[in-house]
Amino acid sequence: MSIQERVAAFRQPRAKENKAAVFVPTADSHASEYIADHFKTRQWLCGFTGSAGTLVVGRQEAALFTDGRYFIQAERQLAGSGVTLMRMGTPGVPEVEDYVAGLAAGATGGVDYRVISEKFATKLSGVLKAHQAKLADTGDWFDALWTDRPPMPTAPAFRLDVQYAGRSTADKLAAIREAMREAGAQLHVVNVLDDIAWTLNVRGDDVHCTPVVMSYLTVGQTDAVWYVDMQKVDAKLAQSLADEGVTVAPYDAIDAALEAVAPGTAVMADTGKLTARLCAALKAAQIIERPNPAMRMKAVKNEVELCNLRRAHVRDGVAVTRLMYWLKRNVGHMPMTERSVEEKLLDLRKEQEGFLSPSFDTICAYRSNAAMMHYKATEATDAELEPRDLLLIDSGGQYLEGTTDITRTFALGEVTREQKQHFTAVLCSMLNLAHAKFLHGCTGLNLDILSRGPIWDLGIDYRCGTGHGVGYLLSVHEGPNGFRWHRSPTRSEDTVLEAGMVTTDEPGIYIEGSHGIRTENELVCVELEKNEYGQFMGFEPITCAPIDLDAVIPEQMNARQREWLNAYHAFVRETLMDFMQGEAEKAWLCQVTRAI
Amino acid sequence: MSIQERVAAFRQPRAKENKAAVFVPTADSHASEYIADHFKTRQWLCGFTGSAGTLVVGRQEAALFTDGRYFIQAERQLAGSGVTLMRMGTPGVPEVEDYVAGLAAGATGGVDYRVISEKFATKLSGVLKAHQAKLADTGDWFDALWTDRPPMPTAPAFRLDVQYAGRSTADKLAAIREAMREAGAQLHVVNVLDDIAWTLNVRGDDVHCTPVVMSYLTVGQTDAVWYVDMQKVDAKLAQSLADEGVTVAPYDAIDAALEAVAPGTAVMADTGKLTARLCAALKAAQIIERPNPAMRMKAVKNEVELCNLRRAHVRDGVAVTRLMYWLKRNVGHMPMTERSVEEKLLDLRKEQEGFLSPSFDTICAYRSNAAMMHYKATEATDAELEPRDLLLIDSGGQYLEGTTDITRTFALGEVTREQKQHFTAVLCSMLNLAHAKFLHGCTGLNLDILSRGPIWDLGIDYRCGTGHGVGYLLSVHEGPNGFRWHRSPTRSEDTVLEAGMVTTDEPGIYIEGSHGIRTENELVCVELEKNEYGQFMGFEPITCAPIDLDAVIPEQMNARQREWLNAYHAFVRETLMDFMQGEAEKAWLCQVTRAI
Repeated sequence: MSIQERVAAFRQPRAKENKAAVFVPTADSHASEYIADHFKTRQWLCGFTGSAGTLVVGRQEAALFTDGRYFIQAERQLAGSGVTLMRMGTPGVPEVEDYVAGLAAGATGGVDYRVISEKFATKLSGVLKAHQAKLADTGDWFDALWTDRPPMPTAPAFRLDVQYAGRSTADKLAAIREAMREAGAQLHVVNVLDDIAWTLNVRGDDVHCTPVVMSYLTVGQTDAVWYVDMQKVDAKLAQSLADEGVTVAPYDAIDAALEAVAPGTAVMADTGKLTARLCAALKAAQIIERPNPAMRMKAVKNEVELCNLRRAHVRDGVAVTRLMYWLKRNVGHMPMTERSVEEKLLDLRKEQEGFLSPSFDTICAYRSNAAMMHYKATEATDAELEPRDLLLIDSGGQYLEGTTDITRTFALGEVTREQKQHFTAVLCSMLNLAHAKFLHGCTGLNLDILSRGPIWDLGIDYRCGTGHGVGYLLSVHEGPNGFRWHRSPTRSEDTVLEAGMVTTDEPGIYIEGSHGIRTENELVCVELEKNEYGQFMGFEPITCAPIDLDAVIPEQMNARQREWLNAYHAFVRETLMDFMQGEAEKAWLCQVTRAI
Repeated sequence: MSIQERVAAFRQPRAKENKAAVFVPTADSHASEYIADHFKTRQWLCGFTGSAGTLVVGRQEAALFTDGRYFIQAERQLAGSGVTLMRMGTPGVPEVEDYVAGLAAGATGGVDYRVISEKFATKLSGVLKAHQAKLADTGDWFDALWTDRPPMPTAPAFRLDVQYAGRSTADKLAAIREAMREAGAQLHVVNVLDDIAWTLNVRGDDVHCTPVVMSYLTVGQTDAVWYVDMQKVDAKLAQSLADEGVTVAPYDAIDAALEAVAPGTAVMADTGKLTARLCAALKAAQIIERPNPAMRMKAVKNEVELCNLRRAHVRDGVAVTRLMYWLKRNVGHMPMTERSVEEKLLDLRKEQEGFLSPSFDTICAYRSNAAMMHYKATEATDAELEPRDLLLIDSGGQYLEGTTDITRTFALGEVTREQKQHFTAVLCSMLNLAHAKFLHGCTGLNLDILSRGPIWDLGIDYRCGTGHGVGYLLSVHEGPNGFRWHRSPTRSEDTVLEAGMVTTDEPGIYIEGSHGIRTENELVCVELEKNEYGQFMGFEPITCAPIDLDAVIPEQMNARQREWLNAYHAFVRETLMDFMQGEAEKAWLCQVTRAI
């Protein structure tokens, strides 16, 4: 079925239902960033495979709204589909809500309330109302239409032992109940999968690269219920949860359970994430609007997690460093492509103790492919690597001891002067932020320009944040901490950076049709001196792999930046040396981590 | 009358009125930062002369709350007064509202509704209610008590010709009415003096160093009324206002006028600034909460204003530069003190065309006096200057062609290595921000760290913003633009920096008991290139005076910072050379603006 056929097949029944415009988000029932295949209706319908985008289908027109990370990819994938690409945030492009409202004006717009948040549903229906249009909950359209639709995921859940989690479920529930007390809530409802996994110290494999379990959690003042496909929970897991005061119920039982909540019950929920459907089920209750306490709690990694994370990053660094050695040594002497290098890297990670899976789809992008920030090599695009130009590899692993995310860009041979200038600018950006010293109270909004500034100085911008929080054996993108320069309603850029938060530092330069460069280290926020001015804070890098000096122009760096780079490379050398295999690899590591 | 006697005399009647705690802000009826002497009740009562502070008088205790700029000064001035100093923002110091509520618990707190905003009154009474306390509008306490209280100011008002203002009153009123239409308002009430002066193109001399006219303004859909002491308005001014659709009414007529507003009238007002008393008068109306449109309009200087401002800054720079020459040449050879230098600088400014008055009290602070950010030399503190150590001079002028604000710190002779290191760090900070290149959409919150970072790197902070907006022949502190790193409820740090905004860039280092250093340039926000990434923005310095190279350690600056400094000094040299008097002064200017 071609995209045009799918859209036509989808549009017809909508017309019968008299829906002037329908809204197909990239979303599941759990406000997940990455969603299980079962929920990838937008992708199936329009063919765009990016992780973010909203499709709007009107009576005649259809449009996909996506952000800067995906402009190039979406342009290619939508070509000939009849679906218009809406480049969000660029001049003249309307807000998606306004676009829907425009199409639905005087009629009805439709959306599945099971995959949008209460807050968004309220906003959308408000915008529609302003256009004399109604918003209707349509339920799921696709079961009928999408014949080979993947089923709901069924991976078994497992317990993350406290030696990895650092804190018991009972202890975490107590902290959440304390937050409930402060908010005056009797019940707390959670649909966010990583908040649930963190709270219950359970993991699974229901979302690609994200070890979460499709489920809901309700926390009462004395009881807690985990709504999950019972087949995923073996007796041992059920028992160990019961021992910490958590009972297990069927996934689908959540709707009935919330409808049964006593009228007037004070229910704490994040309506920016809880689905419009579940909020409707709670209508008898009084909803107390709060972020899930687990969100901020899990963002501040505990001592055990940090200690584990450092170990995970050493192992991950070994894999990436040995790949760098293999690349530099073999490129031009043996055939290799983006995908074969991706495979090689996966093999090297698999050699590492505690490695479970990649933490996201590896981006292995050569030359102009790297200008697509979230490029994924396919059979069609898979580029042959030659001993020249730049190769960008953004990858990460899920380890029992944590989640990693690292980007290195390698010179496979000769690179242009401009590419070196860009590489060095990106490196300076990354280092400037990594060495920020700031008073407690600063947020990512205050610090972002330290990294972005040197790239803005070139009249260039990277159309994304400078960094994001990282989970612990959870989502590779985890809020609320991050480095960004402007507010976005769906994020919490004004979250104060606290000791123990882990955030990536990944500036880049992306020149369409030419090259893409990104260098990414993860930073742990730490306390520095405290004096009459307050508590000073800083960062420690935990990512541990060389940065390719072959693409660096030392004269373009100032003295401090060179010192910082040399100190980082000394740390990499000392940490990884014992893991290098054989004298050649050891000698090479000394060479590539030399002081400049 | 000693302070203790004043507080006692004030406390007695309060006790009779059964006020457990009274709240004496530093405020007039116009949300002014600097207030007419008539309103300086807090200062009269506790003796602290700083421009910011709130006095709370309880049955037994009295406390003054002030911010970091004034800690040292307040400590001295309150010594022996029995009034406790509350260092706002430092650990363990309560919010002033909570302190009042604590004292008033179970009883009544009092405040004059004519000198606090509606928003603050609401907040304060809310906090008191939480302590089972009431808030009462007490009216003005001081007429009886303060026998030699200064009268309300009576300076005549004058018209600022459009050749200076760049835009007619009729035009400005049309723009404000457009904003009213958008907000659905029929009436707009303004009590903020510089918003009124800007809108009406009138100036006066009612507030020390600030050429505003004590008045109120109401803008209807077709009419506008200026409530002002009629004696200040001569026939010519009244006529020229009438020609632009503005009628004049007595100052005190505002209360009755607002009480007479038809029930249900939609009134646009900034309740963060409009007094609780006037909002009470409006109770029949429906208030639409908005910032005064004039606030943002006047922040973006028009072409005429900018062109005038540049001329004003050249003249101001001539005065400051000639003072520097005089200082360097004569210190040690003739007696001079902080106050005599202040006098000398005023004389030099008076020689400049269009100079009207200082734009604020000059801060001329030698050695450790400069550690007090807002030090004002008095007979008691006036320090003898010697040919060594640092002298900080923060001063500015009101010119028909604009308002200036400049700080230079001069080495009068030998200075310590540490002082040079601090001076150079402050210089690098100032330059880093001045040369920021950023995408349109950035706010002061995004950029502040460019300036503050190098000082945080030393484990030091300056306890104030990095910079503030500056008015045009108006307040030297003008919102909403500014450079600060954290939000404050009373400010608008998230105001996007627009081309035409003028903001100071004035980082500093203040070491109690030792020295204080500040270097301040004013920056005009300008548009740089526009490309696929968006509109890039930057700054142009308009302040024009040498920065003392005698206190600079060139090796402490990186190459770019040295280039920036040399380029700035070249601009200063070329701009001021023709104004230097005689060969010696010209030769000296070349020397002090040499490239390093």
